[in-house]
Amino acid sequence: MFESAELGHAIDKKTYDARLPALREALLSAQYSLRDDGRRAVLVLINGIEGAGKGETVKLLNEWMDPRLIQVSTFDSPTDEEQARPFFWRYWRQLPPKGRIGVFFGNWYSQMLQARVSGALDDDGLERALDSANALERELSDEGVLILKFWFHLSKERMLARLDELKDDPLHSWRISPLDWHQSKIYDAFVAHGKRVVQRSSCERTPWHVVEGADNHYRSLTVGRILLEGLQDALQGEPPRRHTVHGALLPSALDERRLLDSLDLSQSLEKDAYQEQLIAEQARLARLMRDPKMQRHALLAVFEGNDAAGKGGAIRRVAGALDPRQYRVVPVGAPSDEERAQPYLWRFWRHLPARGRFTIFDRSWYGRVLVERVEGFAPPGDWLRAYDEINAFEEELTRFGIVVVKFWLAIDKKTQYKRFKKREETPFKRYKITEEDWRNREKWDQYVDAVDDMVDRTSTDNAPWTLVEANDKRFARVKVLRTLNDALEAAFARSER
Amino acid sequence: MFESAELGHAIDKKTYDARLPALREALLSAQYSLRDDGRRAVLVLINGIEGAGKGETVKLLNEWMDPRLIQVSTFDSPTDEEQARPFFWRYWRQLPPKGRIGVFFGNWYSQMLQARVSGALDDDGLERALDSANALERELSDEGVLILKFWFHLSKERMLARLDELKDDPLHSWRISPLDWHQSKIYDAFVAHGKRVVQRSSCERTPWHVVEGADNHYRSLTVGRILLEGLQDALQGEPPRRHTVHGALLPSALDERRLLDSLDLSQSLEKDAYQEQLIAEQARLARLMRDPKMQRHALLAVFEGNDAAGKGGAIRRVAGALDPRQYRVVPVGAPSDEERAQPYLWRFWRHLPARGRFTIFDRSWYGRVLVERVEGFAPPGDWLRAYDEINAFEEELTRFGIVVVKFWLAIDKKTQYKRFKKREETPFKRYKITEEDWRNREKWDQYVDAVDDMVDRTSTDNAPWTLVEANDKRFARVKVLRTLNDALEAAFARSER
Repeated sequence: MFESAELGHAIDKKTYDARLPALREALLSAQYSLRDDGRRAVLVLINGIEGAGKGETVKLLNEWMDPRLIQVSTFDSPTDEEQARPFFWRYWRQLPPKGRIGVFFGNWYSQMLQARVSGALDDDGLERALDSANALERELSDEGVLILKFWFHLSKERMLARLDELKDDPLHSWRISPLDWHQSKIYDAFVAHGKRVVQRSSCERTPWHVVEGADNHYRSLTVGRILLEGLQDALQGEPPRRHTVHGALLPSALDERRLLDSLDLSQSLEKDAYQEQLIAEQARLARLMRDPKMQRHALLAVFEGNDAAGKGGAIRRVAGALDPRQYRVVPVGAPSDEERAQPYLWRFWRHLPARGRFTIFDRSWYGRVLVERVEGFAPPGDWLRAYDEINAFEEELTRFGIVVVKFWLAIDKKTQYKRFKKREETPFKRYKITEEDWRNREKWDQYVDAVDDMVDRTSTDNAPWTLVEANDKRFARVKVLRTLNDALEAAFARSER
Repeated sequence: MFESAELGHAIDKKTYDARLPALREALLSAQYSLRDDGRRAVLVLINGIEGAGKGETVKLLNEWMDPRLIQVSTFDSPTDEEQARPFFWRYWRQLPPKGRIGVFFGNWYSQMLQARVSGALDDDGLERALDSANALERELSDEGVLILKFWFHLSKERMLARLDELKDDPLHSWRISPLDWHQSKIYDAFVAHGKRVVQRSSCERTPWHVVEGADNHYRSLTVGRILLEGLQDALQGEPPRRHTVHGALLPSALDERRLLDSLDLSQSLEKDAYQEQLIAEQARLARLMRDPKMQRHALLAVFEGNDAAGKGGAIRRVAGALDPRQYRVVPVGAPSDEERAQPYLWRFWRHLPARGRFTIFDRSWYGRVLVERVEGFAPPGDWLRAYDEINAFEEELTRFGIVVVKFWLAIDKKTQYKRFKKREETPFKRYKITEEDWRNREKWDQYVDAVDDMVDRTSTDNAPWTLVEANDKRFARVKVLRTLNDALEAAFARSER
């Protein structure tokens, strides 16, 4: 969920200074249009990690825009009056009226997260609170309120560094933080439950915007742009658009730093080390698949990746460890007529592994948010809601005991070029390279963005993505096998407890 | 939830025979249009009480329509293959393709209800299962599947009578019912959890249709009509309508038998008995409000009813029992400017009672599904989603400990006429009667329908409606006070445990 918000996004002062005036002017003008239009209110929810710039952002919004049309509400401990009434009362009483922007600094999400981390709520309690929050937001959104949810994020290292920097800052020292952020386990618990909160409360109409908070310039411009696009979009159309996706949904990072760029693709394995490790991991997989505990689980692996990244070879090395009766490879191409007559996920449901078995999907349901998004085969409404559908789907699987392992095999553009050329030159490999592969290659950057969003939105604790550095095929194959084995072992250990 | 499906709805054979041919022809023609259109599938979910005609209905649909385009799936105990895969797998594999109608006789709802009644699922488990079902239906509906959910209902007495009738019927005797319906407590548990299921899984796009199953003619025509309207609506528009409400939503009962007609409005109290009971109930209310247990609760009463039904007088008798500092009366009329600038429920949230207090709403949030619906002030989309919003709202309140008591004060048309006339003739009451009252009176039947739907959709275990026979004001006032007292006592007893 927070992967691409730990990359160290940053924008230099010069770029910031150059972009700021136009952004401020546009924001002010959108704000007046919102007032004059008078049909919609905007609610901005500020959440996330301590020290990630939540307070600074709120301050900045007030500086940039007309503060008479913004109302900031801070929610710390409930007052006596608030405690005497149902949970959401304190929030209802502070809602912004139509034409205004309300900023909730602290809100139902911070309240439920704090309660969960402190143990005042258990897992079931958190799920119930999320149901209530979803119902509330659906209702507000149906009534024309534009809800923008920000999660300000920092990696643990950056948070600790920021806390040190800020400890003498008067803006911060007065803040009563009921969670002691200096404790590393508090960060871990907050982030773990935070992932769940963000996953469960993202929906097409009220998505989360996860913003890395380490760099002031990057953070400020990003928030400003999302707010601006949201405002502009909300003001379009007559009557105000309710059931549609708003423009600020999935902007690519302002500094063009992407998850895939952060991989060290130079990693490789020598031939001897490869042979040795490959055989060891294959033997380990064969053993794990025969383990009696496997009867309580099933294994499902998803292979996605750049064209020519070596998915086929990796799948063969996995399969090579096993008896053909134990696994099944499902190659996913264009849907059949029968599949086309069914809802999108039907073609994947039908191939789910039974208990004790292993299914390998060579490409998968992620096609919708990769190729179908990039090529425009699916309209935005369809691929945007696919993130939530996929999360719900995988949650059903993992709750049942299926171990879901997802690989993105990543190569760089140069390596792809070399492999394409080689395929063209090798007679028995020529069938593997088509015009379409060359066309896809032209959309390289769009795929990089799509992968970023996919990992951010669908890498959950239960079904995480593994990015595999695949410039070296040997390194990739061993990493794939090892990841599968680690996942199975972890699942066996969990169900032991 | 099931109130109007216990009225003994029936249609005579002559009417049935007269209406059937046109219905069958229209259904057949809609079915072929669905096939030729080829963009949507229809999924019919059959649920409800044993003996309420579920099997007969499925049989009938196959007789009436082209059976080649209908696929009926029966789900009893999961097979080995099904047990080895996640919960929803068995349902996905049987989904109807586009152009077809699938009938699921037994489905996720029957499975979760049976598990809840037998104790295999607890309350939290049921809520999780409902979350999954809602996510699945949202997804199918987003993909263009029209979902029609039927709940076939019978009162307990009618069910027991039906089971006797059917015990020698070969269609029934082979049915394996894992629940023993002859046990009265099984019926009670099934209906209690069924209410929860219907409440939690009703939504604008996939509402439940509750059909009384006692009379074959009524049941068959009602199902046929709902299916027909659903099909016709689904086939309108290009592209197929997804996010809109479909036509079959809230048809009024075919035999025009309505909840309000079932009241015995002749009930009355003599003056002496009235004085005695009134004083006793007022003293009881005063005592309960001073009880220390009241500090864990709050009391909220909603008064709705026909014009001139005596709401004001009843409220005065309730208030008369109390110290003015303990309660507050909130008269609900046209919203203020400030209220108009906020989401609909805002004006009610602001007046919620604090713990220990009592708020009386003289008219309420139900205005949206009464006057706003009937007068057309709110578009159908708004008042249709209001049922779910109101249920969610009241659930937040009751979960917090607020005791919610809702009254509909009912008089007949003749009594209203007499009271209107009397108001016009009495100088100090003349202000109470306006042209608008006379206009509302012309829409009497539409209000009767609206009240039926309101009670069916918002009378929950936590916040039930009480219909008050109010032709005799004395009878009504005592019933109101007694209902409030009983509700408070029950809440105190529950929180003792």
